[in-house]
Amino acid sequence: MSPSRRQALVSKIGEFPLIRALTRGFSPPGPRTLIGMGDDAALLAHPSSAHIVISTDLLVENIHFSKHTSSFFDLGYKAAVANLSDIAAMGAIPTYILVAVALPSHVRYGDWKDLYRGLSVPCKAHGVQLVGGDTSASHSSLFLAITILGQVKPGQTLTRGGAQEGDIIYVSGSLGNSAAGLAYLTHHPSHGKISKLRQPIKFLVRRHLQPTPRIELGRLLSSRRLASSALDLSDGLSGDIQHLCRQSQVGALIQESSLPMSRHLIAYASEVNIDPLPWALHGGEEYELLFTVSPKKQHRLELAAKHLRIPTTAIGVITSRRSGVQIVHQDGKTQKLVSQSYVHFSE
Amino acid sequence: MSPSRRQALVSKIGEFPLIRALTRGFSPPGPRTLIGMGDDAALLAHPSSAHIVISTDLLVENIHFSKHTSSFFDLGYKAAVANLSDIAAMGAIPTYILVAVALPSHVRYGDWKDLYRGLSVPCKAHGVQLVGGDTSASHSSLFLAITILGQVKPGQTLTRGGAQEGDIIYVSGSLGNSAAGLAYLTHHPSHGKISKLRQPIKFLVRRHLQPTPRIELGRLLSSRRLASSALDLSDGLSGDIQHLCRQSQVGALIQESSLPMSRHLIAYASEVNIDPLPWALHGGEEYELLFTVSPKKQHRLELAAKHLRIPTTAIGVITSRRSGVQIVHQDGKTQKLVSQSYVHFSE
Repeated sequence: MSPSRRQALVSKIGEFPLIRALTRGFSPPGPRTLIGMGDDAALLAHPSSAHIVISTDLLVENIHFSKHTSSFFDLGYKAAVANLSDIAAMGAIPTYILVAVALPSHVRYGDWKDLYRGLSVPCKAHGVQLVGGDTSASHSSLFLAITILGQVKPGQTLTRGGAQEGDIIYVSGSLGNSAAGLAYLTHHPSHGKISKLRQPIKFLVRRHLQPTPRIELGRLLSSRRLASSALDLSDGLSGDIQHLCRQSQVGALIQESSLPMSRHLIAYASEVNIDPLPWALHGGEEYELLFTVSPKKQHRLELAAKHLRIPTTAIGVITSRRSGVQIVHQDGKTQKLVSQSYVHFSE
Repeated sequence: MSPSRRQALVSKIGEFPLIRALTRGFSPPGPRTLIGMGDDAALLAHPSSAHIVISTDLLVENIHFSKHTSSFFDLGYKAAVANLSDIAAMGAIPTYILVAVALPSHVRYGDWKDLYRGLSVPCKAHGVQLVGGDTSASHSSLFLAITILGQVKPGQTLTRGGAQEGDIIYVSGSLGNSAAGLAYLTHHPSHGKISKLRQPIKFLVRRHLQPTPRIELGRLLSSRRLASSALDLSDGLSGDIQHLCRQSQVGALIQESSLPMSRHLIAYASEVNIDPLPWALHGGEEYELLFTVSPKKQHRLELAAKHLRIPTTAIGVITSRRSGVQIVHQDGKTQKLVSQSYVHFSE
C-alpha cells in the first residue's frame, strides 16, 4: 500500500473497494460458504449433524479499550480473541465471523486495514471466515460489534450450568497477566513494539494485547466429556466464578494458595512493589477457561491436558449453594469472595 | 413498572435483571433453542434440510437516526425491520436475533425498555426469538448492532446476482413514503403520537418509523422460484438498482412514469409544493423489495401477489451491462440514473 493510500481518509475510498480489501486476511471461503459478503445476507450450508453456537460481543472506545494502550491491530486482535473465547467456552469449533464497525471520520485507511488485519490473525489461525458485517461513520467514538458462529455435535456442549457439589474447579494458563500488562501500558502508553519490550513486561503486555483463545482445550473438554461446566474468564475470576455458580446453583471454595501465577507476573509485581494477588483474583480479559471436573475424571483430564501441553490448575472445589462463593486465604482464614469485576454500567 | 423504576438510571439496575426484563416481549424459546441468553453463547438446533442466512446491521445515533425524529420505541422497531428486511430479500424465514447496544449513561431504564419493546414487536410478529446480545455503556452516542438469523431451503434463495437481460423489474408497495415522512418529522420534531397525526402525514410518518418487512413476499418469490434476483430498498431505488445490476452484471431501464407513489405521498407533496419524484427515486429506508422476474413468469407473479394482497408494480426492464442504469423521464428523454443514496462515509 502506498503511503498516500494509507493516509487517505476512509471517506474517500468508498465502501465496496474497502470491504474487498479488508476480507483478504481471513480464511478463504470454503464449500459451505454459498454466499459471503456483498448480498443482503450470507448464506451458509450447515452440517446436519451439528448444532449452531452463536454469540455477539460489543467493544466501545474508552469503555473496553483505549487508543492510549492499544493500536488498531491490537484492538482487532483482542476483539477476535474475545469472541473465539466464547466459542471455546462452549466446547465448539468456530466457523464464521461478522464485523460491524463504526469509525470516527478522522480514521485513516491504514488504521482500518490494521484493525481488520488484527481481527484476521487469530481468525485465520482457527479457520474462521469473515462472511458479513456493516460499516458506518461515527461522530464520536469507535464501536466494534462482532458476531461469531461455531458448531458443535449434539451432547458435546459445555455450559455454565452443570457443576456439581464435589467437582474440582480448574483454570487454564495463569491468572493476572492481562491486568498486570494493562497496568504497565497505562503508565507507559507509548511503549513501541511488543517485541522490543524487555521481560517480564513483554510477556504481560502480550497476554493483555494478544491473548490466546482456548479452542483446543474447549474441544478436549467437550468431545471427551471431561468437564461438567465451563466459561471463559473475561470479567475476572472473582466475577466469573459467581456466574458459573449462579447458573449451576452451587457454591465454590477457592484456594488462594493454588491460584496459578506466572513467573513474569511475580517478577513484575516485585519490581513495582505490588501484591499480584488482586490481579490474579479480579483482573479481567484473561480469556482462560474456568471449568469444573468430576473427581472421577480428574486423572483423565490432567493426562489429556498434559498431552496437549495446555497448563491446567485445580484451584478449588464446588460446594453447596448455601455456602456461597468463598476463598481460603494463605493464612487459613475463609472469607466470602466478592466480585470486583469491572462493571460496564457504573459511571 | 413504577414511575421511579422507569426513571432509574440503567447503571443502578444491573445487567442480569435488565436482560431478563428485556427478553420478555419476544417470541418464547422454541424446542430448537437449546440455550438462549445467559451462557457464553446461544446453542441452536438447526434443521438439517435448511441453509443458514445471517446478516448484521449497525445503527449509529446522528448517522442513521436522531432522537429528534424517533423515540426509543421507534428506533427499536425500525432496527428490527431493517434486519428482517434483509432476511426477506434472501427469500428466507427469520428465526433468531442478537442485539448489541451501547447506551449513554444518562439513558433511563424506561427508555431502554421502550427500545427493546420496539425491537420485539416486529420480531414477535414473525416468530423471531432474542437469543443473545451484549450491553455496554457509551461515553457518547447510542449504538445498536443487530445480527439476524434465518433459514431457507437449498435452491430457494433470492440473491442480487441472477437478473437476466429482458427480465421485468418490480418493486413492492409504493416509493418515497419514508423519505417524505422523515421530511415532515425533521420540521416537526415534537409531533406526539403517530395515531394523533392527520392524514396524509400519519401514513407517511408511520411508513418512516414503522415500515413493513416483506417477509411473505420474499417467501413467495423464493419458494415458487418467481424472481431471478432481489434486494431490499434501504439506500433508495437509484442506489439499490446499481447494487443489483453490479452483482448481476446487467444494466437497467427504469420508467419514471411507472414508479408507484401512494395517494398520501402525492397529497402531501402537493400541500408542501414539492415534487415527490426525488423522494420516490432516491429516498432510503423503504424496506420494499426490488426484484426481477422473467417475462415467462410475469403472469404467475402478478396473480400470486394479488392473491396475497401484496402490491407489486413493474417499473422497468433489465438491459445489457454496457447500457448501464438509465431512466426514461415522463417527456420520453432517457438519462443515466445517478445514485443519490445517502453515503455513510461522506462528512
